[in-house]
Amino acid sequence: MRKVSVINGPNLDLLGVREPGIYGKLSLQDIRNRLEDEAKGYNIELDFYQSNHEGDIIEKIHEAYKNKYDGIIINPGAFTHYSYAIRDAISSVMIPTIEVHLSNVYSREEFRSKSVIAPVCAGQISGLGADSYSAALFALAIGFSGDTSEGGLQ
Amino acid sequence: MRKVSVINGPNLDLLGVREPGIYGKLSLQDIRNRLEDEAKGYNIELDFYQSNHEGDIIEKIHEAYKNKYDGIIINPGAFTHYSYAIRDAISSVMIPTIEVHLSNVYSREEFRSKSVIAPVCAGQISGLGADSYSAALFALAIGFSGDTSEGGLQ
Amino acid sequence: MRKVSVINGPNLDLLGVREPGIYGKLSLQDIRNRLEDEAKGYNIELDFYQSNHEGDIIEKIHEAYKNKYDGIIINPGAFTHYSYAIRDAISSVMIPTIEVHLSNVYSREEFRSKSVIAPVCAGQISGLGADSYSAALFALAIGFSGDTSEGGLQ
Amino acid sequence: MRKVSVINGPNLDLLGVREPGIYGKLSLQDIRNRLEDEAKGYNIELDFYQSNHEGDIIEKIHEAYKNKYDGIIINPGAFTHYSYAIRDAISSVMIPTIEVHLSNVYSREEFRSKSVIAPVCAGQISGLGADSYSAALFALAIGFSGDTSEGGLQ
Amino acid sequence: MRKVSVINGPNLDLLGVREPGIYGKLSLQDIRNRLEDEAKGYNIELDFYQSNHEGDIIEKIHEAYKNKYDGIIINPGAFTHYSYAIRDAISSVMIPTIEVHLSNVYSREEFRSKSVIAPVCAGQISGLGADSYSAALFALAIGFSGDTSEGGLQ
Amino acid sequence: MRKVSVINGPNLDLLGVREPGIYGKLSLQDIRNRLEDEAKGYNIELDFYQSNHEGDIIEKIHEAYKNKYDGIIINPGAFTHYSYAIRDAISSVMIPTIEVHLSNVYSREEFRSKSVIAPVCAGQISGLGADSYSAALFALAIGFSGDTSEGGLQ
Amino acid sequence: MRKVSVINGPNLDLLGVREPGIYGKLSLQDIRNRLEDEAKGYNIELDFYQSNHEGDIIEKIHEAYKNKYDGIIINPGAFTHYSYAIRDAISSVMIPTIEVHLSNVYSREEFRSKSVIAPVCAGQISGLGADSYSAALFALAIGFSGDTSEGGLQ
Amino acid sequence: MRKVSVINGPNLDLLGVREPGIYGKLSLQDIRNRLEDEAKGYNIELDFYQSNHEGDIIEKIHEAYKNKYDGIIINPGAFTHYSYAIRDAISSVMIPTIEVHLSNVYSREEFRSKSVIAPVCAGQISGLGADSYSAALFALAIGFSGDTSEGGLQ
Amino acid sequence: MRKVSVINGPNLDLLGVREPGIYGKLSLQDIRNRLEDEAKGYNIELDFYQSNHEGDIIEKIHEAYKNKYDGIIINPGAFTHYSYAIRDAISSVMIPTIEVHLSNVYSREEFRSKSVIAPVCAGQISGLGADSYSAALFALAIGFSGDTSEGGLQ
Amino acid sequence: MRKVSVINGPNLDLLGVREPGIYGKLSLQDIRNRLEDEAKGYNIELDFYQSNHEGDIIEKIHEAYKNKYDGIIINPGAFTHYSYAIRDAISSVMIPTIEVHLSNVYSREEFRSKSVIAPVCAGQISGLGADSYSAALFALAIGFSGDTSEGGLQ
Amino acid sequence: MRKVSVINGPNLDLLGVREPGIYGKLSLQDIRNRLEDEAKGYNIELDFYQSNHEGDIIEKIHEAYKNKYDGIIINPGAFTHYSYAIRDAISSVMIPTIEVHLSNVYSREEFRSKSVIAPVCAGQISGLGADSYSAALFALAIGFSGDTSEGGLQ
Amino acid sequence: MRKVSVINGPNLDLLGVREPGIYGKLSLQDIRNRLEDEAKGYNIELDFYQSNHEGDIIEKIHEAYKNKYDGIIINPGAFTHYSYAIRDAISSVMIPTIEVHLSNVYSREEFRSKSVIAPVCAGQISGLGADSYSAALFALAIGFSGDTSEGGLQ
Repeated sequence: MRKVSVINGPNLDLLGVREPGIYGKLSLQDIRNRLEDEAKGYNIELDFYQSNHEGDIIEKIHEAYKNKYDGIIINPGAFTHYSYAIRDAISSVMIPTIEVHLSNVYSREEFRSKSVIAPVCAGQISGLGADSYSAALFALAIGFSGDTSEGGLQ
Repeated sequence: MRKVSVINGPNLDLLGVREPGIYGKLSLQDIRNRLEDEAKGYNIELDFYQSNHEGDIIEKIHEAYKNKYDGIIINPGAFTHYSYAIRDAISSVMIPTIEVHLSNVYSREEFRSKSVIAPVCAGQISGLGADSYSAALFALAIGFSGDTSEGGLQ
Repeated sequence: MRKVSVINGPNLDLLGVREPGIYGKLSLQDIRNRLEDEAKGYNIELDFYQSNHEGDIIEKIHEAYKNKYDGIIINPGAFTHYSYAIRDAISSVMIPTIEVHLSNVYSREEFRSKSVIAPVCAGQISGLGADSYSAALFALAIGFSGDTSEGGLQ
Repeated sequence: MRKVSVINGPNLDLLGVREPGIYGKLSLQDIRNRLEDEAKGYNIELDFYQSNHEGDIIEKIHEAYKNKYDGIIINPGAFTHYSYAIRDAISSVMIPTIEVHLSNVYSREEFRSKSVIAPVCAGQISGLGADSYSAALFALAIGFSGDTSEGGLQ
Repeated sequence: MRKVSVINGPNLDLLGVREPGIYGKLSLQDIRNRLEDEAKGYNIELDFYQSNHEGDIIEKIHEAYKNKYDGIIINPGAFTHYSYAIRDAISSVMIPTIEVHLSNVYSREEFRSKSVIAPVCAGQISGLGADSYSAALFALAIGFSGDTSEGGLQ
Repeated sequence: MRKVSVINGPNLDLLGVREPGIYGKLSLQDIRNRLEDEAKGYNIELDFYQSNHEGDIIEKIHEAYKNKYDGIIINPGAFTHYSYAIRDAISSVMIPTIEVHLSNVYSREEFRSKSVIAPVCAGQISGLGADSYSAALFALAIGFSGDTSEGGLQ
Repeated sequence: MRKVSVINGPNLDLLGVREPGIYGKLSLQDIRNRLEDEAKGYNIELDFYQSNHEGDIIEKIHEAYKNKYDGIIINPGAFTHYSYAIRDAISSVMIPTIEVHLSNVYSREEFRSKSVIAPVCAGQISGLGADSYSAALFALAIGFSGDTSEGGLQ
Repeated sequence: MRKVSVINGPNLDLLGVREPGIYGKLSLQDIRNRLEDEAKGYNIELDFYQSNHEGDIIEKIHEAYKNKYDGIIINPGAFTHYSYAIRDAISSVMIPTIEVHLSNVYSREEFRSKSVIAPVCAGQISGLGADSYSAALFALAIGFSGDTSEGGLQ
Repeated sequence: MRKVSVINGPNLDLLGVREPGIYGKLSLQDIRNRLEDEAKGYNIELDFYQSNHEGDIIEKIHEAYKNKYDGIIINPGAFTHYSYAIRDAISSVMIPTIEVHLSNVYSREEFRSKSVIAPVCAGQISGLGADSYSAALFALAIGFSGDTSEGGLQ
Repeated sequence: MRKVSVINGPNLDLLGVREPGIYGKLSLQDIRNRLEDEAKGYNIELDFYQSNHEGDIIEKIHEAYKNKYDGIIINPGAFTHYSYAIRDAISSVMIPTIEVHLSNVYSREEFRSKSVIAPVCAGQISGLGADSYSAALFALAIGFSGDTSEGGLQ
Repeated sequence: MRKVSVINGPNLDLLGVREPGIYGKLSLQDIRNRLEDEAKGYNIELDFYQSNHEGDIIEKIHEAYKNKYDGIIINPGAFTHYSYAIRDAISSVMIPTIEVHLSNVYSREEFRSKSVIAPVCAGQISGLGADSYSAALFALAIGFSGDTSEGGLQ
Repeated sequence: MRKVSVINGPNLDLLGVREPGIYGKLSLQDIRNRLEDEAKGYNIELDFYQSNHEGDIIEKIHEAYKNKYDGIIINPGAFTHYSYAIRDAISSVMIPTIEVHLSNVYSREEFRSKSVIAPVCAGQISGLGADSYSAALFALAIGFSGDTSEGGLQ
C-alpha cells in the first residue's frame, strides 16, 4: 500500500472559514475529505496536515522520509516565495514531491510568480482549485516519480 | 457535448520520434490517443493540434472562439517565454485555458521559469509528463472555468 | 500619386468581432473603410493588410520597398514588444514608418510600455483609437518623412 | 464652445530661436499660430502656454480644472522623465490629456524612452514635429476622451 | 467596547533588557503599560503580545479575526522584510492594521526600507519610538479603518 | 513657546476641492483648522504652508532654520520620490522633521514606495488620512527629536 | 558524402538588393554561389535556404535531422535574440551547428550582443562578412563536431 | 571557564542519517562529540543545539546573552539566505559570532552565495566539512572577538 | 572681453551661514568675491547667481545664450541627480559648461555619484572645495572649449 | 609582405601540458606551428606570443602599432571579461583585430558570454578549437579589415 | 612530505608596516613565521609568497602545479572581486585551494562580498585575522581536499 | 619642499604618438614638461610616471607612502573602472589623491562613468585636457588635503 503526505502551509486553515461567498463553499476539511475518498480508490494511505509554522512543515517532510512515504503533495502557501529551508528539506529527502496551488499564482502579485521550492519538486500545478490537489494525487497514484526529460522539449 | 482544443507548440512533433530511450516511448501521437480516449469517457469532443508556427497557433485560438469551444489546453513549447501575441490571443477569446508542460520548467534553465502566457491562463500544470495533459482535461471536463480567489490564500 | 501601406499585426482581426460592447462598434474593416476614404481625399493609394504571422508582416514590409511605397503605418500588436525581425525589416527598407496603437500602451501592463520597433520608426501614436491611424495617414499625406531634431528639445 | 489648454514645458521657448537651420524654421510661436487657426476651424477656444517652471505647469493644469477645460495637450519637455508632480496634477483633474513630442523620443538617449506622465494620459504622439500637436487637437476636437479598451488588443 | 490586538515580532522582547543606555529606559513592558493606560482612556480592550515565532504571529492574527477584533497594531520586527506569510494573514482577515516601527527604518540598512507587509496594511508609522504605537492606537480609537484615497494626492 | 512648520507639496491644494465624494469632505483648510486647534492645546505656534513649487518649499525649510523652528511636518506630495533638493534642505537645517502622507503610499503604484526624503527625516507616517498630520504634531509637541536606536531592534 | 544545411533568417533576402553601396556588392545569391563552390571542393552536399518565418526555419532544422545532415550553418538574423523555439529545435536534433553573422554583432546595438541560440551551438563566428559562412563550412568539412573543453581555458 | 553556544539550523538533523555514502559517515552527533572533546581541551563549556524553527534559534541566541556566553558558532542552514530576524538577534546580543558551513556555499546554487547573516558576524568559514566548526571553536578558544581592521587590506 | 556665468543650485545659499565650524568659514559670498577677483585678473566679466528654483536656473542658462556668454560654470547642487530639464538647457545653448562640486560626490551617498548633467558638459571638477570653481574659471579663461578626444585614451 | 600578431592571454600556456586526454593532444606550440605553416602559404609574417600579464599584452598591442602590423588575432583568455585596458589598447591602435576562443564561451558559465573586448574588434570566432585561429588568419590573409555594415542586416 | 603554497595578493606587503596601531603589530612576515612554525609541526614544506602583480600570482599557481604541490592557501586581496584570470588558473591546476581573508569581507563595502574566486576553491575562511591562514593550513595538513556534499544540507 | 607623484595608467604612453591630428599635438612628455614647469613655480618636487602594469602602479603608490609624498595625481586610464587593487593601495597609504582624466568620461561609453577609484580619492577632475593635471597640481600646491564637508551641500 502506497503512502502520500499532503502538507498545507500558512493561512490555509482559514479556507472556507472566512467569507465562503468569495472562495466558494470549499473548506480545507472539504479538500481533505475529497482527497481521502480518492486515496481509498487508489489504495493509498493519506496523511493530511496543515501548519502555520515553517519548522513544523520541515519536520513533517523529515517524517515522510523516516516513515518511507512514496510521495508528497505540498501547498506551501506564502512560504513558496522565500522558504529555502523547506526547499532544502524536500531536496534532502528525495521523495517525489508535487507543489500545488489553489489559485493561479502567475496572474496575481509579481512576487507570487517566483517559487523557490519548485526547482526541487517533480512538478507544479496551480490555478485548478481543489482539482490541483486531486491531479497531484492521481499522478502519484499511477506511479509518477519525477520527469527525466532533457534537451529542447518542454 | 463540450468541446476542448488541445494545442501544441514548436518542436513537440519531435516527441517520441528522436531517441525514445531518453524521452520514454511516448510520442505526441500517443498523448493524442490517450487524451482522445479520456475525452470520450468525459463525452468531450477533442481537437488535437500541433504547429511550429506562432501565427498558426494564434489562429487556432481564434478558431476555438469562433467555433464556441469550452476550453483550451496549450503546451506552447518555447513560445511560453516570449510570445506576447499568443498571450493576447488567449486573453482576447476569454475561453478557460490551461497551460501544460511535460517537464518541470522550474528545474531547468533560468529562462524557462518565466511564462508570459501563464498570467492570462486559468491554471498551469508542469512536470507530470503526459499526465499534465490528462489532469488539464479532467479539470475542464468537470466544468472548471478559472479560479476566482482573492486575498491571502494561494 | 503617393502610396501608403497599412499593416496590422496579430489578433487585430478580432477587433469588432468579439464583444463590440467593450471595444466600441469599430471593426478592423471599419478602420479600413475610414482610412480608404481619407486616403482618397489625400490622393493616396492605400494598401490595408492584417496578418497573425510575423514572417508575412516582414515580407509585406519588403514588398513596400520593392513597390516603392512612400510610407508605412504599422500597428504591430504584441509583436511590438519582441519582434526584432520586424524592426530590422523597417530599418532596412528606409521608408518613413509610423507605429500606431489603438489603446494607450503606457497605462497597461508593464511589458507593453517597451517597444523594440519605435526606435527605428519616424514617430509613434498611441491611445487615440482609430484616430491613431488617421493622424498617421495625415502626417504622411503632407509629406512628413521623419524628424531630424537634435539637442535638448523634444 | 469647447476649450483646450496647450501646455509646453522647459526649453521649448528656445524653439526656432536658436539655429533655425537645425530645427527648421518653426518657432513655438509658429506652432501656436497654426494651432490657433486649426482651433478656430473646430470652434475650440485655445489657451497656449509655456513655462520652464514645474510649479507653474502644475498650476496651469489646476486652472484647466477650475475653468472647466475639455482637454489638455501637453509637451512636458524633459519633465516627461521625472515629474511625478505633473503626473499627479493630470491624474487629479481628470481631463482628457494627450502627451505630445516634436521628436521621436524612442530613437534618442535611453532615458527619453521612459515617460512617467504617459500612464495617466489618454494617449501619446511623438515624432511628427508640429503635426504631433495638430493630431492631438484634432482628436480632442471630435470628442475623444480617452481609450477604454481592455484585453489583448492594442 | 472596541478591541485592538498589538502584536510584536522577533527580538522585541530584548527591548529595555539589554543596555538601557543605548535604547533609553523603555522596555517592551513599559510600552505595554503606556498603551494599556491609553486604551482605557479610549474604552478599548487591548491584547498585547510578543513572539519570536512567525507561525505564532500568524495564528495571533487569525485569532483576532475569530474573536472579532476591530484593529491590529503590528511591529513585525525583521519579519517586515520577508514574511509574505504574515502579509497573507493580514490580507485574509481584513481587519484594519497599522504597521509600526520604533526607529526610522528608512535611514538604516538598505534592506530595512522594503516592507512586504505595508502594502496590505492601512497605514505605517516609523521612527517615533513608543509614540509610533500610541499614534496607531489613537487612529484606531477614533474609528480609522483604512484610507480610500485615489488619484494623484498622497 | 515651541514653533512647528507644516509644509505641503504639489497638488495638495486640490484636496477637498475636487470631488469631495471620493476623498471625503476634508479640504486642506480643514486639516489646517484642525491642526491649529491641536497646536493651541500644545501651546505650539503653527505655520501652515502649501506650494506647488519645489524652490518655494526649499526656501520655506531654510526659513524654518532662520526663524528657529523646533520641528517640521512635511507632506512632500510627489516630490517625495525625486526631490533630492528638498532632501538636502532638510538634512542641512537639522530640525526634527516628520514626513507624512494622507494615503498608504505602500499599497499604490510601485514608484510611490520609494522616498528619497525619508532617510533624512526623523520618522514617517502614512495612510492615516488627516490623523497622519495630528500624530506628527503630537510627537513633536512632547519633545520628540528623532530616534537614536541602534542594533537589531526596529 | 557529407551533407550540410545552410539556413538564413529574416531580412537576409534583402542582402545585395538594396543599396549595394553600403553592404558591398554581395547578395545572398553570391554567398550561396561561393559556398556551393567551396562545398564541391570539400565533397559536401549543400542545402542553402532562407526564410522570414520562424516556423519554417524550425522545420528546416527538423528536416536536417530526418535527412541525416552532418552539420548546420545558421545565420538566424534577428531571431538570434529571442527565438527560444529555434534554440530548442537545434538542441533537439543534436547536429553540430555553427551560428554565423555577417557583421560584428558586439559593436552594434546592445540587444544584438545577446544570443539565445549560441549556448546550444558548437561555435559562433561574427563580423567576417561572407567569410563567416566560409569559415564555418571549412570547420564542418574537416570533421569538427563541437568543442569538449572544460575547466579554465577558453 | 568560557562558554560557547553552537547552534545548528534547519535540516542539519538529517546529517548522517540519510545516505551516509554521499555526505560521509559523519552525523551531527559525531560533530557534537568531536567539538565537545575539543572544548574540554580548551576548558570551554559547550552548548550544542539544533532546531528547524527560526523562533527557537532566535531564543537560543537570546539565551546565550542572558547566560553570558562568550561566543556563538552558528550554521544557520538555509536561514542563512533570508532570516533577517536571526541577523537582528545576533547583532542585538553583541556576542562574537562565527558563521560556519560544511560545504562551500559559493560553488553551489546562486542563492547560496548571499548571506544576510554574515555582515553582523565576526567571521565566516565554509567548505571545510566538520573542520569548519573546529576552526571556529579554535578561534574563539584563543580569545578572538571580531576583526577590527579598516582601510584597504583584506 | 570674455563673459562667464557662474550658476549655483539649491541650498548653496546656506553655505557659510549655518555652522561654519563644519563647512569652514567660507560662504557663497566668499566664493563669489574670490572668483570675481580672479576674473578681473583674466579680464573676464563674471555673472554670479544662485537659485533654489529649477526654472530660474534654466532661464539663467537661456540668458547666457541670449547675452552671448563664453562659458558657464555650474554647481547644480541636488539638481545634478535628476534635472533632465537643466541638462536639456545646457545642451541647447551649446556654450562650454563645466560642472563643479565643492565635495567629492563619489565618496558620499550612492545617488550622488550619478550626474544626469555631466554628459552634456565639457568637464567636471569635484572635491576641491572652492578650488573647484577656480580651476573651472582658469580653464575657461585660457580658452578651453570642450574636449574632442576619441578612441581609447581618457 | 603582410604582418599579423597572434596574442594569447593567461593560462593558455597550460594548453596541452595538463591532461591531454581532456583537451586533446594539441598544445599552444602545436597551434603556433600550424598557424606558421598557414601563414607561409599566405605569405604572411607571423608573430606568435603568450603572456599571463595584462600589461605585457597591452604593450604587445602597442608594438604591433609601432611595427605597422596589418592585423591582430587575440585570445584574451579570462581578460576577455573585464580588461578595459586591453580594449582601450585595441581601440587606440586601430589595427583590424579578431577575437578568438577555443571553446564556445556562450555555452559555459554566465560570465563568459560577456566580452568587453569584442565591441572594439572587427569580428569574433569561438568554439572551433584551433580552427578558430586558422579562420581568423584566413580572413586577415585575404584582406579583411573590419565590417562596415549598417542597418537591419546582421 | 606534503607541500603547500601560500600566495598573497596586492597591498598585503603593507601589513604591519603602516600604522601598527590600527592593524595590530602583526606584519606579513609575522604571519609567515607563524605559518612556517605550524607547517613544521605538520611536516609540511611551505612556500610563502606575495606579489602586487596579477600575472605573477597566476604563474605562482602554475608553478604549484608543475612542482606537484598538495594545496594552496590564497589571500587574493582586491583581486578577489574581479580576477577571472586567477580563477581560471586555480580551476586549471586542480589543486585543493582555500581562499582566506584577514577581515570579515561581508561586513565591509558591498563590492567586497562578491568573490569570483570562491566558486572554484574548496573552501573560504574570512574574518579571523591571522587565524584564517592557520585554520586553512590545519585543514590541508589533515588531508582535506575539497568538500563533496550535495543536496539540501549546507 | 613638498613632493607630488603623478601616475599615469595604461595606454597613455600612446598619447601624442599616434594621430596628433585627433588628440592635438600634446604628448605625455609635453604634459610632463608643462607640469614640471608649474611645479617649479610652486616649489614642488615632481615624480612623473607611466606604466601599463597594474602591479607597477600599485607599487608606485606604495613608494609614495614610503618616501613621504604629500600628494598623488593619478590618471588610471581604463584601470579606473575595475582596479579595486589600485583603490585599496590609495586607501591604504592615506595620501591626498586627485583622480584626473583628459576627456570627459561622462559623455563617452556607459562603462566609463563608473569609477571604482574615485570614492577613495579627495577629488576628481575630468574633461579639461592637460588642464586637468594642472588644476590638480594647483590644488595640491596650495595645501589642499581632501574635503571634509558633510550634510546636504555638494
